[in-house]
Amino acid sequence: MPPPTRAATAWPRSSNPDVMALKTAKRGAVAPFIVMDVMRAAAEREASHGDVLHLEVGQPSTPAPRGVLEAAHRALDGQVLGYTLALGIPPLRAAIAAHYRQSYGLNLPADRIVVTTGSSGGFILSFLAAFDAGDRVAMASPGYPAYRNILQAVDVEPVLLPAGPDTRYQPTVAMLEAAQRETGRLAGLIVASPANPTGTMLSADELAELAAYCSTSGIRLISDEIYHGITYGSVAAATAARDDQAVVVNSFSKYYSMTGWRLGWMVVPESLLRAVECLAQNLFISPPSLSQHAAVAAFGCGEELDANVARYAANRALLLEALPRAGFDRLAPPDGAFYLYADVAHLTNDSRDFCKRVLAETGIAITPGVDFDPDQGHRTVRFSYAGSTSDMAEAAGRLEKWLK
Amino acid sequence: MPPPTRAATAWPRSSNPDVMALKTAKRGAVAPFIVMDVMRAAAEREASHGDVLHLEVGQPSTPAPRGVLEAAHRALDGQVLGYTLALGIPPLRAAIAAHYRQSYGLNLPADRIVVTTGSSGGFILSFLAAFDAGDRVAMASPGYPAYRNILQAVDVEPVLLPAGPDTRYQPTVAMLEAAQRETGRLAGLIVASPANPTGTMLSADELAELAAYCSTSGIRLISDEIYHGITYGSVAAATAARDDQAVVVNSFSKYYSMTGWRLGWMVVPESLLRAVECLAQNLFISPPSLSQHAAVAAFGCGEELDANVARYAANRALLLEALPRAGFDRLAPPDGAFYLYADVAHLTNDSRDFCKRVLAETGIAITPGVDFDPDQGHRTVRFSYAGSTSDMAEAAGRLEKWLK
Repeated sequence: MPPPTRAATAWPRSSNPDVMALKTAKRGAVAPFIVMDVMRAAAEREASHGDVLHLEVGQPSTPAPRGVLEAAHRALDGQVLGYTLALGIPPLRAAIAAHYRQSYGLNLPADRIVVTTGSSGGFILSFLAAFDAGDRVAMASPGYPAYRNILQAVDVEPVLLPAGPDTRYQPTVAMLEAAQRETGRLAGLIVASPANPTGTMLSADELAELAAYCSTSGIRLISDEIYHGITYGSVAAATAARDDQAVVVNSFSKYYSMTGWRLGWMVVPESLLRAVECLAQNLFISPPSLSQHAAVAAFGCGEELDANVARYAANRALLLEALPRAGFDRLAPPDGAFYLYADVAHLTNDSRDFCKRVLAETGIAITPGVDFDPDQGHRTVRFSYAGSTSDMAEAAGRLEKWLK
Repeated sequence: MPPPTRAATAWPRSSNPDVMALKTAKRGAVAPFIVMDVMRAAAEREASHGDVLHLEVGQPSTPAPRGVLEAAHRALDGQVLGYTLALGIPPLRAAIAAHYRQSYGLNLPADRIVVTTGSSGGFILSFLAAFDAGDRVAMASPGYPAYRNILQAVDVEPVLLPAGPDTRYQPTVAMLEAAQRETGRLAGLIVASPANPTGTMLSADELAELAAYCSTSGIRLISDEIYHGITYGSVAAATAARDDQAVVVNSFSKYYSMTGWRLGWMVVPESLLRAVECLAQNLFISPPSLSQHAAVAAFGCGEELDANVARYAANRALLLEALPRAGFDRLAPPDGAFYLYADVAHLTNDSRDFCKRVLAETGIAITPGVDFDPDQGHRTVRFSYAGSTSDMAEAAGRLEKWLK
């Protein structure tokens, strides 16, 4: 065996005429998550003009609550921060189970709680544990674009259920029946309540009806509860309360104001637990350690977190008053989350161009509907009001002046 | 629209006789990452006996270097820690590019550096960007089990190339030719140098030969360089130096001693960059923010990190002297990483049972070879010497006494 050397010049370069073309996978060609491209355009405008109001991005403008930050400082000083168990550290799984008891009166064994790398990790794990290549999974359109893009990347076919104001942009049993009748068997249904981009909610009865239909039809229900805790009237119904075969995906990103910490959790049916564990060991090893240690403190930060929700409520009230005055008067029922979804068909037929013009001419970043609805999104936009109330007031003023 | 209520008792339970059985995906049935099960057994032994020596786990026993911890404290106090750009924060991408200049004399544009959620995130992104369902990807066996388990989860077929001491447990062009001749076209090859579990390396010439064969045969080379920086003689050759169509996967976990921070990076060929970006936006949103801000400081911590490597070198020397005396005298050439891979065919034909007995009778946790080699691993074990030198000395003593 010759001693290793750096035979740099002897190496073939890919400009070598013998080189065969290398493929890019077809499934690698998923759509971009357009809001992230909008974020980049907004950052460029901020660099050149310094006047950007961020109503594009679906994240709180606040850092993690003080108790979480203090716990993080302590963990940095006191822990090695190596890999954890794949399903998460036991104190965090126990704290999440306690949260279900306190917030929903629901007794879930901590064994069914799986800590994940954001809700993103939860979606990857649920889709791979529950669906095979070629399976078909339904969801309302408009909806969170990563659902369909992740599914496509793992060769599962997204079935979009066009949903409008008449069903509060939510799926219904009738839509599922029609989809199965017209296009074949569904393996799964994804619901979100409150939903992104619309902020609309399913009532407990509607969720129950969907769960019942899924149960009797062999459809795996996946419930995205990432906006639980951010509602303006009724409390969001917990899917795990009654359907113990549903997979629930949740996150510390929104109510807990910890987006960049990349931490979420799932409630997993017993029958999927070992598959989820083996997938998590291999695909993620473990969620971020520091985030896990810090997040245990999140459940004691209700006062600070509820103050954030009060700010969202103020922002929402301000925009619900100001946006219609400015010309955005066709809004989805804003039950929860921190979004207003506006039909702008009277203003544009090209929402991407419209959002570019809004950014260029007012400095306000908003997201075109095409991110959420490939078919109808050319005439919708999403406003996020997760920022400061003064930013919302300033944005409303600029928009009103601009549209006049 | 009725107001949302919690119609708890009206909801169907899954014990309802109308409920259809829900499927678990076939591809969800991947093998466990056995070392994580061994970690759990070791933790139980520690709880009951308090005497465990950890030679099972592939992670440094040290925390992140001081400079990283200080940067993390500063970021906790000074940053909101929201989502970052999907490909990572620009200062970190620039710092990684600078690392290639300083350590390998290699000019890579920062645009080709993609920050990932651990090397795990890098594997998911490269496999989805480069391979479609049904593609076949080769790798040496023994090897890191997550390669084949992640591939299987996304419906890519792993092709194991049995490798032994005659090729330092590394793949060769002859093996690739035989695999293509006998079983059909390969879409990819995964190499690792230094490798897990063996610690063996490819010389620069051997790596060049493999890269040349891949280039001329349309095989995408994926090079796992996670153990770069932990070598005991020659420096590991950088794949990106000559093959600009290869995907390089690396991590802050091993040399940088930051396993639980879940941060890694890729060097991505131009032609795959947009696919990787769109996949990253949808599958991960962004890598952990705090880890990214802190990791910028990692490249200024060479002194502390090299002291870790000096400890691994001392541990390696100690075990190379003591293990043969204790009866483990068939070891793979230990070029790098912090592993010794031992053929224990003269001691057992069931390495899982053997490792259980070692744990039960000596308190030493080691990993059975079946994790790394489904075919031959029943007669091999892996020792990790990433722990303290005193633990290694104690382990060697206990093992010698036990085998006598």
